[in-house]
Amino acid sequence: MEPEKPLEISEVQTPKPTGSEVLVKVKAVGVCHSDLHLWEGGYDTGDGFMKVTDRGVKFPVIPGHEIVGTVTEIGSAVQGIAVGDNVLVYPWIGCGNCSACRIGNDNVCDAPRSLGVFQNGGYAEYALIPHFKFLAKVTGMDLEAAASLACSGLTAYNAIKKSGATSQSNVVIFGAGGLGLMGVQIARAITNANIIIVDIDDAKLQTAKELGADHSVNSKDPEATQKIMTLCGGKGADCVIDFVNAPPTVKMGLAIIRKRGTMTLVGLFGGAIELSLVSVPLKAITIQGAYTGNYNEMVELLNLAKRGVINPIISKRYSLSEANTALEDLKARKILGRAIINP
Amino acid sequence: MEPEKPLEISEVQTPKPTGSEVLVKVKAVGVCHSDLHLWEGGYDTGDGFMKVTDRGVKFPVIPGHEIVGTVTEIGSAVQGIAVGDNVLVYPWIGCGNCSACRIGNDNVCDAPRSLGVFQNGGYAEYALIPHFKFLAKVTGMDLEAAASLACSGLTAYNAIKKSGATSQSNVVIFGAGGLGLMGVQIARAITNANIIIVDIDDAKLQTAKELGADHSVNSKDPEATQKIMTLCGGKGADCVIDFVNAPPTVKMGLAIIRKRGTMTLVGLFGGAIELSLVSVPLKAITIQGAYTGNYNEMVELLNLAKRGVINPIISKRYSLSEANTALEDLKARKILGRAIINP
Amino acid sequence: MEPEKPLEISEVQTPKPTGSEVLVKVKAVGVCHSDLHLWEGGYDTGDGFMKVTDRGVKFPVIPGHEIVGTVTEIGSAVQGIAVGDNVLVYPWIGCGNCSACRIGNDNVCDAPRSLGVFQNGGYAEYALIPHFKFLAKVTGMDLEAAASLACSGLTAYNAIKKSGATSQSNVVIFGAGGLGLMGVQIARAITNANIIIVDIDDAKLQTAKELGADHSVNSKDPEATQKIMTLCGGKGADCVIDFVNAPPTVKMGLAIIRKRGTMTLVGLFGGAIELSLVSVPLKAITIQGAYTGNYNEMVELLNLAKRGVINPIISKRYSLSEANTALEDLKARKILGRAIINP
Amino acid sequence: MEPEKPLEISEVQTPKPTGSEVLVKVKAVGVCHSDLHLWEGGYDTGDGFMKVTDRGVKFPVIPGHEIVGTVTEIGSAVQGIAVGDNVLVYPWIGCGNCSACRIGNDNVCDAPRSLGVFQNGGYAEYALIPHFKFLAKVTGMDLEAAASLACSGLTAYNAIKKSGATSQSNVVIFGAGGLGLMGVQIARAITNANIIIVDIDDAKLQTAKELGADHSVNSKDPEATQKIMTLCGGKGADCVIDFVNAPPTVKMGLAIIRKRGTMTLVGLFGGAIELSLVSVPLKAITIQGAYTGNYNEMVELLNLAKRGVINPIISKRYSLSEANTALEDLKARKILGRAIINP
Repeated sequence: MEPEKPLEISEVQTPKPTGSEVLVKVKAVGVCHSDLHLWEGGYDTGDGFMKVTDRGVKFPVIPGHEIVGTVTEIGSAVQGIAVGDNVLVYPWIGCGNCSACRIGNDNVCDAPRSLGVFQNGGYAEYALIPHFKFLAKVTGMDLEAAASLACSGLTAYNAIKKSGATSQSNVVIFGAGGLGLMGVQIARAITNANIIIVDIDDAKLQTAKELGADHSVNSKDPEATQKIMTLCGGKGADCVIDFVNAPPTVKMGLAIIRKRGTMTLVGLFGGAIELSLVSVPLKAITIQGAYTGNYNEMVELLNLAKRGVINPIISKRYSLSEANTALEDLKARKILGRAIINP
Repeated sequence: MEPEKPLEISEVQTPKPTGSEVLVKVKAVGVCHSDLHLWEGGYDTGDGFMKVTDRGVKFPVIPGHEIVGTVTEIGSAVQGIAVGDNVLVYPWIGCGNCSACRIGNDNVCDAPRSLGVFQNGGYAEYALIPHFKFLAKVTGMDLEAAASLACSGLTAYNAIKKSGATSQSNVVIFGAGGLGLMGVQIARAITNANIIIVDIDDAKLQTAKELGADHSVNSKDPEATQKIMTLCGGKGADCVIDFVNAPPTVKMGLAIIRKRGTMTLVGLFGGAIELSLVSVPLKAITIQGAYTGNYNEMVELLNLAKRGVINPIISKRYSLSEANTALEDLKARKILGRAIINP
Repeated sequence: MEPEKPLEISEVQTPKPTGSEVLVKVKAVGVCHSDLHLWEGGYDTGDGFMKVTDRGVKFPVIPGHEIVGTVTEIGSAVQGIAVGDNVLVYPWIGCGNCSACRIGNDNVCDAPRSLGVFQNGGYAEYALIPHFKFLAKVTGMDLEAAASLACSGLTAYNAIKKSGATSQSNVVIFGAGGLGLMGVQIARAITNANIIIVDIDDAKLQTAKELGADHSVNSKDPEATQKIMTLCGGKGADCVIDFVNAPPTVKMGLAIIRKRGTMTLVGLFGGAIELSLVSVPLKAITIQGAYTGNYNEMVELLNLAKRGVINPIISKRYSLSEANTALEDLKARKILGRAIINP
Repeated sequence: MEPEKPLEISEVQTPKPTGSEVLVKVKAVGVCHSDLHLWEGGYDTGDGFMKVTDRGVKFPVIPGHEIVGTVTEIGSAVQGIAVGDNVLVYPWIGCGNCSACRIGNDNVCDAPRSLGVFQNGGYAEYALIPHFKFLAKVTGMDLEAAASLACSGLTAYNAIKKSGATSQSNVVIFGAGGLGLMGVQIARAITNANIIIVDIDDAKLQTAKELGADHSVNSKDPEATQKIMTLCGGKGADCVIDFVNAPPTVKMGLAIIRKRGTMTLVGLFGGAIELSLVSVPLKAITIQGAYTGNYNEMVELLNLAKRGVINPIISKRYSLSEANTALEDLKARKILGRAIINP
């Protein structure tokens, strides 16, 4: 892949794993908005465009970070993984050496080596995984459905956990898209909080309620702020989790966050807001970012999926030669839920 | 005290403690910027003026929340405190019933009853303390010097702890005024971090270094940002603690915070900044407010002072009849360090 | 109540609440093993008998700490609670002043004032509650069923949380009695762990599986230890939660705990074990006690019950005049599940 | 080294680092009690002898896990470490794949590969380190003095941190030997707790006071228990840290631990105690093991040493050919403080 150019399929030699490496025959690879950002070359930051090349991406690169498949060959030092195992790949690989990696948080590494971003990913027949420790076995559930757990599921899981929601919390989730709906399911599965979903689309709000939200508010409603406050018992939200992270949602979030509340920003929509400085100490609020998640969280999430308390759903399938169409469809908002490519 | 009017001394009957109440003869009461905010009636929030009456203050009220004195009478249910004890008063009293108070964080209560703000404080001969549990005995150190530990010391202590600084951290502290200098002493006393102090005043920077900062940077230096980055090993600050919390310091803080870093906003200077939304998740940073501290922290701080690892210093004294002068002097920036009133 | 004597009903004047006090007309009060310990005057500690009077109990006292009822009168300072409210009473009241109480952990107070133990409880028509903050409103669920949440439910909840179980944990629960079955339900409700229940009674094991345990092992099975190890993937339990806490269960727990594992002792069965000292650092294990729970946990638990994810069940009812029979039945193990008295 | 046989010096070829490996010319290697345990083949566990071969040690092996030296050659994938760097080696290497290693706690790995225990260590001219991430640069302090920070210093640091001591704690430390004296220095450096040292040797107690203990108690004093209680304000110790971990110290620890207190067992002396089960939940105490420490803690400790707040001291030096004498001297308790071998 190169920015703004159509993806091309190349014939490459299937790599041979050595040492701790593992070769995975890709069964499915998720099509993600990050692939689009990569294809478009960057993000809108509110006061400019953050190029992915400035963040260290080197083109050309094979995209695809939501990879499931079957192990076909292993290096001599591999332990606990055998040929024939069905696996989900942890793609947010770090340097292994920085202070984040040393405690297992590769996802926020100083010098990331993520698969499908900084090194070749899964839009391919085979993927060479640099170390067996980045694999999680998938049993007792649909292998292809597990793909999205490596990215959108993981991001939602990390954000919900980081928000600190408990059974006593009023939790307001912004955005009932793919990420937000997964967030609702996870919040329902791991907390007994009062969950309020906010979006501009009534159909999506309805889906969110079916997946576990207690209440929904359409943010186009002129009384949305007041309605959310009432649903939060008049004091505001303990936890705001913003899967959109655009100026209107963050502003509404700041309007309904309670004293001591936590706002977790997840989405990469972009833009900027005016932040009143004195309100931060006076209300003792916390504004924090959440970015994907770590390997342990991915394994916990797999357990939730196996138990059936969350249900990642595949809504559309493409072949590898249709990769361009898949990305165009995603850009044109033609994909509801999660699409995968079957190489 | 009433907003914008000179303080007047009234003759009132000395109250009589009942139940768990304690009567304290005030030996000294600190003169604090919050007293000024109260006197001025509010804060500049960046997009307006936040009135203290809108936050629940009812005038007239006796100001003064940094109170030390001697117990002269106790209610019948008082335990562990006796007539004659020298005490420091915890002024950030909460409702006792909200989710903050229930875990001992009265300082961020939903419905605060702080002494000297929401109920009568220590600009008086006697102060009636509503419950003996808000007192801490002062032994082995100068009683009057302890006064500031209830507010500026406590605020600095809470902020340093909340910042999460460890012996591996690069800590950047903005502001070498009274609060910031206390912050430097405390950071030195409770962590072994690399401490960098930033201010616009070289004399204050020098004092900060004498009190324990490892490095200092004058923010008027056009290369200040780059210098701080270098002092942080090129990666930026793990912990930014901003005792000023004005647009220029917060902007510089955001420029030098590292990935995964924590920015703790403490000061009540006011103003607003433009916050780029996408950078929060991409850098996985945390921006949080710190506001005074809880009773346990005040007791820990007293222990630090008794051990001599921090040294609260009184720089100026006034009598009760000079209270107006004291506030005027504070406003005119004529007080370096901490002033007290001896009623 | 006095040790070893039949309980007697006395006519007393209904107390009148003042200040923050609340008068509750008791609708139901749970009959708990602790009432029996109180009646018997103490516990077997393994090397003697720990008298409740040595722990500060003063007879005569009205027992009963699992109290639900309706508010009939309130003191003048009461807030947020009104006459007619149905409430569950938090009985583990502390001194309010020690380091545990200051952070809301009254349940492990240095000088406890628990209702039904150190001061009069709920085996009575009316109970005078010392402060409105010890009440939690009960709505949307059966009031009488809530009674046990103040003690057995709360103890189980606190223990499961303290054990640190996550969705990746192998959790072994000893004891499928009233406490253990509640523990299984709660573990299932708040974690997605692999739950293994161990008991000597196959019928109880079956019930535990119906309530959410993944696996069961009868500890009379000579291969029980090996079976548990296998169910824990060969490495042993991450979390052992022992609701019996007798020598055989603790020994088996130590045999199947994994390196870094946590053993939470809850039951008050008594006895002693020989603990090999060197194994504690070499395996880096933790052995900790859990005792009832705090107010916040009780409220969280009420939320779980309202959502229906846990179901406290009443198995037997007595009138107040049958209190002696109730305790005799409990002693004779004639009560399965939870009994209540309806005064 | 093989159990119970004299150590022999062999001529081996200097290894050549590849990939991420680093070759270190050993400047000094500490002589540690663990080397003795290895030489003796195991530990007394109270009810038997735990053989090191049962824990996975394979003889012959080169002992020595406290290694400092100079980098002489690096593999092609090494980053951030250069030939000529003076380094301290982190020896508690884990499998990299278990749940402990994944969060950076290699020291409590399921399948440890520690240098000088499970693979060749530093009683040698050169040591081949498997990955550059196990090295920490040593600058600004004496290189040889840093050696003990990899083991005794690290163990003490991890134990003090794990104990949860704060500025409000009464901390009782058992054992004023090498480990305990380091523990006292560290407790003094990172907390402002009230520190009480307990030992049977008055000279060592005196040293402990010079290094920062507030009080000392000789445990041979018949009133030792009562004295400790008094020094803890009558309530007992918040944190007991037992660097001996033998039956007499643990029994005394259990006698003086307060409600909610934490007992951290560190020493590998051996033996067993009778543990009363009911007291664990009733007092809500925690008994936990601490074993060496992780890489991050070692780096934090290096920072403390550079700042001079702790002072690791070398008391005796041997050449490599005197290794047998060194171990014999250690066994015969002829070494006070820390001995090193200079290969």
